[in-house]
Amino acid sequence: MASPSSSTFDRLFKPKTIAVFGSVKQNKIGHQLVTQLTDGKFPGSILAVNPKGESPESFPAIPGVPRLSQAPFPPDLALIAVPAQFVDSVIRSCGEAGVPFAVVFTSGFSEIGNRDEEDRLKETADIYGLRLIGPNCAGIMDTHAGMYASIEVRALPGKTAFVTQSGAVGGAVLALAEIRGIGFSKFISYGNRVDIGEVELLEYLESDPDTEVIALYLESLQNGREFMRAVSRVSRSKPVLIIKAGRSVSGLRAASSHTGSLAGSDEIFAAMIRQSGALRIPGMEEMLDLCDGLTSLPRLKGDRVVVVTNSGGPGILTSDRAEELGLKVKESPPHLREELKAFLPNHCAFANPIDLTVEGTQEGYRRTLQVVLGSEYDAAIAINVATPFLDSAALAEGILEAASSQKQPKPLAAVFMAGEIVEDGIERLQKGGIPVFPTGERAAFVLSKMYEYTLRSASAESALEQAAGGEPAPLPFPNEAPILEPEALSFLEEQGFPFPEHRYITDAEQIPEAVRNLRFPLVLKVVSAQILHKSDVGGVLLKLEDEGQVQHAFADMARRFGRQGFQGAMLYRQVMEGLEIIAGIKQDPTFGPVVLVGAGGVLTELVQDSAVRIAPFGTGEAEDMLSELKTNRILAGYRGSTALDRGALADLLVRLSDLAVRHPAIRELDFNPIFLHQRGLLIGDVRIIL
Amino acid sequence: MASPSSSTFDRLFKPKTIAVFGSVKQNKIGHQLVTQLTDGKFPGSILAVNPKGESPESFPAIPGVPRLSQAPFPPDLALIAVPAQFVDSVIRSCGEAGVPFAVVFTSGFSEIGNRDEEDRLKETADIYGLRLIGPNCAGIMDTHAGMYASIEVRALPGKTAFVTQSGAVGGAVLALAEIRGIGFSKFISYGNRVDIGEVELLEYLESDPDTEVIALYLESLQNGREFMRAVSRVSRSKPVLIIKAGRSVSGLRAASSHTGSLAGSDEIFAAMIRQSGALRIPGMEEMLDLCDGLTSLPRLKGDRVVVVTNSGGPGILTSDRAEELGLKVKESPPHLREELKAFLPNHCAFANPIDLTVEGTQEGYRRTLQVVLGSEYDAAIAINVATPFLDSAALAEGILEAASSQKQPKPLAAVFMAGEIVEDGIERLQKGGIPVFPTGERAAFVLSKMYEYTLRSASAESALEQAAGGEPAPLPFPNEAPILEPEALSFLEEQGFPFPEHRYITDAEQIPEAVRNLRFPLVLKVVSAQILHKSDVGGVLLKLEDEGQVQHAFADMARRFGRQGFQGAMLYRQVMEGLEIIAGIKQDPTFGPVVLVGAGGVLTELVQDSAVRIAPFGTGEAEDMLSELKTNRILAGYRGSTALDRGALADLLVRLSDLAVRHPAIRELDFNPIFLHQRGLLIGDVRIIL
Repeated sequence: MASPSSSTFDRLFKPKTIAVFGSVKQNKIGHQLVTQLTDGKFPGSILAVNPKGESPESFPAIPGVPRLSQAPFPPDLALIAVPAQFVDSVIRSCGEAGVPFAVVFTSGFSEIGNRDEEDRLKETADIYGLRLIGPNCAGIMDTHAGMYASIEVRALPGKTAFVTQSGAVGGAVLALAEIRGIGFSKFISYGNRVDIGEVELLEYLESDPDTEVIALYLESLQNGREFMRAVSRVSRSKPVLIIKAGRSVSGLRAASSHTGSLAGSDEIFAAMIRQSGALRIPGMEEMLDLCDGLTSLPRLKGDRVVVVTNSGGPGILTSDRAEELGLKVKESPPHLREELKAFLPNHCAFANPIDLTVEGTQEGYRRTLQVVLGSEYDAAIAINVATPFLDSAALAEGILEAASSQKQPKPLAAVFMAGEIVEDGIERLQKGGIPVFPTGERAAFVLSKMYEYTLRSASAESALEQAAGGEPAPLPFPNEAPILEPEALSFLEEQGFPFPEHRYITDAEQIPEAVRNLRFPLVLKVVSAQILHKSDVGGVLLKLEDEGQVQHAFADMARRFGRQGFQGAMLYRQVMEGLEIIAGIKQDPTFGPVVLVGAGGVLTELVQDSAVRIAPFGTGEAEDMLSELKTNRILAGYRGSTALDRGALADLLVRLSDLAVRHPAIRELDFNPIFLHQRGLLIGDVRIIL
Repeated sequence: MASPSSSTFDRLFKPKTIAVFGSVKQNKIGHQLVTQLTDGKFPGSILAVNPKGESPESFPAIPGVPRLSQAPFPPDLALIAVPAQFVDSVIRSCGEAGVPFAVVFTSGFSEIGNRDEEDRLKETADIYGLRLIGPNCAGIMDTHAGMYASIEVRALPGKTAFVTQSGAVGGAVLALAEIRGIGFSKFISYGNRVDIGEVELLEYLESDPDTEVIALYLESLQNGREFMRAVSRVSRSKPVLIIKAGRSVSGLRAASSHTGSLAGSDEIFAAMIRQSGALRIPGMEEMLDLCDGLTSLPRLKGDRVVVVTNSGGPGILTSDRAEELGLKVKESPPHLREELKAFLPNHCAFANPIDLTVEGTQEGYRRTLQVVLGSEYDAAIAINVATPFLDSAALAEGILEAASSQKQPKPLAAVFMAGEIVEDGIERLQKGGIPVFPTGERAAFVLSKMYEYTLRSASAESALEQAAGGEPAPLPFPNEAPILEPEALSFLEEQGFPFPEHRYITDAEQIPEAVRNLRFPLVLKVVSAQILHKSDVGGVLLKLEDEGQVQHAFADMARRFGRQGFQGAMLYRQVMEGLEIIAGIKQDPTFGPVVLVGAGGVLTELVQDSAVRIAPFGTGEAEDMLSELKTNRILAGYRGSTALDRGALADLLVRLSDLAVRHPAIRELDFNPIFLHQRGLLIGDVRIIL
């Protein structure tokens, strides 16, 4: 993909001239686009080009905008809304005229299986270096440029860039945002993504001065690893919020048929989010809440939240939710209570939530918030549950005064409930830069995600270095498939993976020397390229207690498997003790090599205990994987038992990550079981698929 | 508590005359109440009584309402908003005048520790048979009687009765509901609950013809078992929605300080909800959504949901959430697709979600919904994501036509996104009785809870019978505390609890006969009233393999514990095999006797696997408890292993439930471990606290 330096996207978002291709008849998209541009007071020129020859002059001249004939040529941006069969020729004429960007609204391409036609658009555009957004999209907006090249509700100005694969989700978010008074810097619906997609847009938005937060709605990804690298880098400086649709079976079915591309497994997607420092958001309302919080509040440094309210119930519901989401709503310390009691009436509750009661005043809110924000708490939620007889506007002023008097600003969110009686108060707060949420529970959600960003954006940095600089070059795997156990073992041992002592026996005469050097009991496993599931055919014999039993077992195998490519047998020291763990490598179609770890033995399915990360990663991420496991409690020394060698297990995961990246030929690798001890570990069995 | 037959609450909710006691100065509660009553066009008479002697005549005469002097006497209802120190004397004068009901708005009682004064109000009221709501409450409303005796936003008329301990939560819910156009039949804020509380209100609302759904906001309960019985009975005919505040540590702290009564443990509260057929709701917005759905839709019979949309993304987010919440979003069967393809364009998606695309028409929605609602699906969600150029009102008509043409109505919920452009459409739908939700995710939540109601209201019936008719009479425990192991065992064996074979040895001479009848290995446990934790002091000796070892162990114990009340030792056959389970009885301060069961051994804390139910319960509920456990997978025969004796374990739980109710003297009882086998089980150890 020929990717120009992203600064050239400026012509896409801040064009001087836009040409609209499509019917200018009422209710047609061409007509809607011109209406949106003119209604939005686009400051540049609009060329309405109708392939059917209907007059574009039916659009009124806009005061201050040059007449069509005076527009600069060529246009910076073409909006294409002609029928599908004409799109290619319109792109060709745009290309010939030197137009650098086109947004194709027209549908009827890969989303209904018509991929060939879609590919042709890209080929035609490539000839001229014309870059495309779409097809099958809802357009783009830049509120700071007054540019609304979209059929959706015009966004209010703001600091969030919203990038969406689904035009309809984009439209719904914009309409919901309008009700709440939440704005956007840019809106980009990229539809079928024949050319410009989420990765390039992220790169551009990273340095876009109008954008502080980036929100994405995704159904599928084209290149998972590139996307992850981009998110990891961008999220260091700007929060990246992601809604991923297609989590469930039915959702996935719809997402797949909807975009024509396979959505990745949800667990791996979740790992990508975690590793890259992005924030996963369940739905549209939560996304808007969080955009509001992130663009209006300072960063949240810690997890200690205080709730200041004028009514008990909503305060309790808020702290319940906050604690469920991992924040701490700690009881106020004695010194703080004393400070508050100096000016608050006795009937108030001082513990946290701090309840000013229905008699709470402007002054009460101001002083209380000043005290708690000046204390060890990291953030505050101020709740006002109004009655029709309460002066909510005054309470809003109290909150604003407290916020503006902060020397080192901490996040302060407000909840004003509800309806008409608090409208005035909400407006004052919003104008003063305080976000107002419909319920305390939603404010708690926003703070919990803000804290997650604080934690994750730090670790994302190292993930990025790992992913970018530290990614080792791929190597071919030393053997052809199928790989036999002796070869696999010697290869893996070279890479530092520990196995129980063993000998490869190809001849019965080697047995006496082998058993002298191994401790009983021993295990014998058949070696044959033709036998995949050794246990199922009696190819694994356990608990061999002396040389005679080994001799007998080997002879028996040689006889039984003689016609099935018998090449010998592996003789192992039998390991049984230790906690059983499983770990392995898989190739994910979207994100490439991933490493998994989980509880082994009977726990495997019972507690469904596993963690996954996209390779490569370092020790910090491996430790984080282990922390995610329920089995983590056993690793740490559970119920007085001695702690197990967590470090050795983390080390194994990093080695697996390295192996996965260096040897992409390994399609699947399983260590099952691994026996984890108080010191070190041993791999009980291995399976490799190339 | 003298509880009159609930029909007499009619005078409380539909009074002919209301007397308001309190200052009539602007901004005082007395003034606010009279204003609310008059603004709400109260059809009866209002007497404004001001203890300070300020003129109530400052209130304008209301057309159609008799002059104050013409009001019938005595009033049916007194609203009391005088300062705390005067409340008692106002109650006394009301009582003397024969007023049957009073709502006390005044605060400053038990919520700030002033319980004595609060108790006195009740005593005074009891003298006259006067029934009280409050104190410290926000009042009551009956929208069908035009009676708004509350300082909160006046509710719109509707079919949900909202009962709330917190006046502020009540006010917030009313204000949120007003924005959404959601109404109520009654609003009752009962504050400190000195007299009338949730139980009597539930009993009254059960037969209230204006009420179809009952929603409760609770912080604490006065009598958990009475409440549970009331909910169990009411929820058979009307859904009971419960928001319980104080789930978290900080929330509980606030709830406790807020109401002065101890909130019960959240797990036990959850069990009560489950057993009684109520629906637990996390917050206010979810509550309103569900009230809207339950009061406007027919009952949901099954869990198969179909989504009809005009845009992919929101359809996917909806089915993702629906499946996460346990509903089924099954692919449409071939015959259905054929039916749809007969009239829908080819570019539509037919799988489920069914995507009509942005070109979806009124006719398209109507016919599609008619087909899917006539098929095997149990409910449908119709989503319209509008653009400013789409005629949403027409789509609303299509949906309404489909709904009204149903012969056997199934729930049909709508999602119209968003803002001004869909206002007209939403209004039409609501007028036509179709609930409209802000997002598809919220519609999915409503349907999931409606299905939960269908499932639970059936089982609540049996729970009720169990709880009412089947509750056995309490018996004294046969022994005084502390109870010794031999006594406990013989008592429990009589009740049918199975223990390993055992003998009580008080003299070494009994040992030869005992070991002849027991199988080795054996376990010896000291018996002494002074030793509580036998293992800790070496009072349990395992793996005794012959008579000599038993003799030696007994002599050793007699010597070591001679001065610590040694009374002998219990000799058991040692049981080790089997799955370890723990079960027991606890007395909950709110709900009385409860039975617990969980995974034993190493799994106990690792998977935090336990279930609890309030006793008494029957086999069905015991089976449900086991289904709740993760260990359930092992019980059922996990990974090819033979199934364990689930029936024996369920039977043990029912026996425990019976024991708990019959013997309230048992404060705590633990069976830990229980060894569960393929046939039967054995209790390895028991601990009883009286």
